Amino acid sequence: MAPKEVYKQLTAECRKIGILGSCASVLGWEERTYMPRGGRRLRADQLGLISAMHHEMFTSPKIGEWLSQLESSDLVKDPDSIEAANIRELKWEYNKRAKLPTDLVEAITKETSIAQGIWQEARAKKDFKMFAPNLEKVIDLTIQKAEAYGYEGEPYNALLDDYEPGTTVKDVEAAFGGLRDDLVVLLDKIKGAPKKPDKSIVERAYDVDKQKIFGESVAAAIGFDFNIGRLDITTHPFCSGFGPGDTRITTRYNPDRLNDALFGTMHEAGHALYEMGINKKEHFGMPAGESASLGIHESQSRMWENQVGRSKPFWNYFFPQAQRIFKESLGDVKLDDFYGAVNNVEPSYIRVEADEATYNLHILLRFEIERAIVKREIKIADIPGEWDSRFEKYFGIKVDNIANGCLQDVHWAAGLFGYFPTYSLGNLYSAMFFDQAKKEMPDIYEQFERGEFLTLRNWLKEKIHQHGFRYRAAELCKKVTGKELSHKPLMKYMTEKYSEIYGF
Amino acid sequence: MAPKEVYKQLTAECRKIGILGSCASVLGWEERTYMPRGGRRLRADQLGLISAMHHEMFTSPKIGEWLSQLESSDLVKDPDSIEAANIRELKWEYNKRAKLPTDLVEAITKETSIAQGIWQEARAKKDFKMFAPNLEKVIDLTIQKAEAYGYEGEPYNALLDDYEPGTTVKDVEAAFGGLRDDLVVLLDKIKGAPKKPDKSIVERAYDVDKQKIFGESVAAAIGFDFNIGRLDITTHPFCSGFGPGDTRITTRYNPDRLNDALFGTMHEAGHALYEMGINKKEHFGMPAGESASLGIHESQSRMWENQVGRSKPFWNYFFPQAQRIFKESLGDVKLDDFYGAVNNVEPSYIRVEADEATYNLHILLRFEIERAIVKREIKIADIPGEWDSRFEKYFGIKVDNIANGCLQDVHWAAGLFGYFPTYSLGNLYSAMFFDQAKKEMPDIYEQFERGEFLTLRNWLKEKIHQHGFRYRAAELCKKVTGKELSHKPLMKYMTEKYSEIYGF
Repeated sequence: MAPKEVYKQLTAECRKIGILGSCASVLGWEERTYMPRGGRRLRADQLGLISAMHHEMFTSPKIGEWLSQLESSDLVKDPDSIEAANIRELKWEYNKRAKLPTDLVEAITKETSIAQGIWQEARAKKDFKMFAPNLEKVIDLTIQKAEAYGYEGEPYNALLDDYEPGTTVKDVEAAFGGLRDDLVVLLDKIKGAPKKPDKSIVERAYDVDKQKIFGESVAAAIGFDFNIGRLDITTHPFCSGFGPGDTRITTRYNPDRLNDALFGTMHEAGHALYEMGINKKEHFGMPAGESASLGIHESQSRMWENQVGRSKPFWNYFFPQAQRIFKESLGDVKLDDFYGAVNNVEPSYIRVEADEATYNLHILLRFEIERAIVKREIKIADIPGEWDSRFEKYFGIKVDNIANGCLQDVHWAAGLFGYFPTYSLGNLYSAMFFDQAKKEMPDIYEQFERGEFLTLRNWLKEKIHQHGFRYRAAELCKKVTGKELSHKPLMKYMTEKYSEIYGF
Repeated sequence: MAPKEVYKQLTAECRKIGILGSCASVLGWEERTYMPRGGRRLRADQLGLISAMHHEMFTSPKIGEWLSQLESSDLVKDPDSIEAANIRELKWEYNKRAKLPTDLVEAITKETSIAQGIWQEARAKKDFKMFAPNLEKVIDLTIQKAEAYGYEGEPYNALLDDYEPGTTVKDVEAAFGGLRDDLVVLLDKIKGAPKKPDKSIVERAYDVDKQKIFGESVAAAIGFDFNIGRLDITTHPFCSGFGPGDTRITTRYNPDRLNDALFGTMHEAGHALYEMGINKKEHFGMPAGESASLGIHESQSRMWENQVGRSKPFWNYFFPQAQRIFKESLGDVKLDDFYGAVNNVEPSYIRVEADEATYNLHILLRFEIERAIVKREIKIADIPGEWDSRFEKYFGIKVDNIANGCLQDVHWAAGLFGYFPTYSLGNLYSAMFFDQAKKEMPDIYEQFERGEFLTLRNWLKEKIHQHGFRYRAAELCKKVTGKELSHKPLMKYMTEKYSEIYGF
């Protein structure tokens, strides 16, 4: 068969595999949004079956043979072509996945599905012991996965590589080291600053229905298309791009705090804009129809949440609207005070509600602990203790209860070890990308002030979204910004912002 | 391999196939409840893929061989055993399904998924032409399916057999003939009756949120367990039993009419009680873990909707509650007047909102037309005309617009030709079963008056639900009532009820 024919067959088969995978996305979304409690076991069976079938289809010898044929064909002659990128990244993924026995894949899917349900209950009951046996199973399976993949250095490398292809613990440590040092300095300055925002402004009564209307109008303004997406409510907000034409986001409403749902919605909408901007119509199922990495994904959510949503120009446009909607709580508030309040920096327990500066400490903490868990240096039963003592060291406050401690995130229940660092990588990338956007569109803040966000959205689509996984994160960063990953743009952005707000 | 081992393998494989099928149930439910418009194409691809995989798994030679081995084994010695029933009905289904090429199965799933979306739009726009090309495709595929199955007599027999195993057009005609004749007499008596209920009572303002609360409390009272189920909103109400532990129902609220959502909810809850009562934990994926037929299914929904929900004893208990909740619309109403209003008989356009008596005319009409469509005696373009003229003949009123005419039901868009008769079969069975229930539990109405519905529910579970598809409809009917299918119990029940209300 001619290489073009082989490539066509490969594309069709991958699309089919992608569609099967997208069924699991719908099931996973429904599990977290609407499913009644009693459906947990069946859902685990459904997801386990689909993941096993998906694995068998993708790792079938047929795909391996096609890829081998294509690797030495004319189609990869131009390494920058979409075809070459697709073949290269599929081969990389094939080599990895083929190392995993189907039983293990199915077991991971089933156990993590069950563990997520138990985690939800355990978190509500603040009961770690209830969750520990399930967590233990998930950790055992995760380590088995790392061993099956194989790794250089430590097992964590194998896991990280699933979410941030080509990035190693060493790369992460290099980026996080400078970040940690500079953050300590910044947070010290903030602590001793002469000015303090009045955060109580955003902690007044905010009617949930009105929050919903406002959040949806903001999401629509930045480009979230409700014809090809939905916004629902979940305990743990997330975005799921099912495939062409269907991308879902979720949030959670706190009637006594404006930030959570609003910035959460912008965050997830940022993820969704990435999913909606990938050319899935053409490339679904192939790397060019997927995101480049979770770090790049997070750079998009973080940019809309922070560089846009927590900027003065954004609120220049949206604050009068917010005042009209939340008249009782915001009617008498000045824009500058509101801007300060949404940017208040303060140690807090919950990662997803943290400010931009301390957020990264939450990640550093998790990165340390999960690395040690995977190395078996921390026992399951010791996780709460390890968490609490390290938390106090980083944040200077004591964890008051376990739902505010190591039970707060779904990730470990979901088997997502190696995932957390991508959040801070996303912060670093977002600052780099936004710097570049400002360079190329010097009037971007004036646009925000006029309520125009689509220029930025289109820029992101052109520079980042449309490429899918054609380039790896580091390469994409270089292509877009001309620079290597660095923590400096993020620190510069934060230092400028907070020095104005805190007056240091 | 010993027969017991073969049977065990068969059971495990069928459970797996059942779980795959249940993924499609979730996708189908989500398509109709929450999916954004843009997701239609992807959803069709997902459902098409799963149906193709499901078909290939179920019709694999392996299953055929296992069944052949088991058919001549000791396991079928006692024809009344669960094992014998499972083997017998699986073999029957295998023989049917194996005749369908996978391409056809996939095409039907995809085209009906798309056609349902178009139908929804066409119905809203009252535009038959918009829907006609899709309907034509669905009809072509449906006829191809009938031809692939093969049939005696006419192609409609092959289709009907999918929903009402073992029942033929001849059986249906025999039951419907007497029903038609007796209905004409009854409706004439009602038309000329001295008393008329005041239906305006149920056509006042009924706040949707309050309807929801009331409907959910009624559903819970008759045994719908919200821990293993949900009630959502859709254009066309339905029930979907995903599998063990998860059964969904939907309804639609009309702020100006109490009946639609209330009796719709009871109807779907009746279906759900059946699904919840089948021993799926043990038998999921095997016939004993499925319903016996759609007619039997409908007998359960109809019984809760009509024999219970439209009975005086039911309202003796629930009316004071309804009066408290809908104080403005019901505060000044007498129980007898309300009871008359929910039982008002009147020709109307919409089947799902029809009263108990005229309901069956809606089915007779559809049965005639779809039989002719499948025989190619009615062309697609002529469907609206055929509908309207027959409707006028049956109901004595002219169809005012096509959304109230042949575009009202989703069934044809969904490829469900041969499905409609099961609704009236369900009405016939429901009257027979309820007669028997009254015989065995003479105080059943007193129980209703005290708000006790679980005795009836448990009786149904014991007599009908728990058996799943161990017996075919006709046999089950005989086992429960000792009688053959007949239209007489239904006519007797209706005549008694309406003679009291209408005073003839």
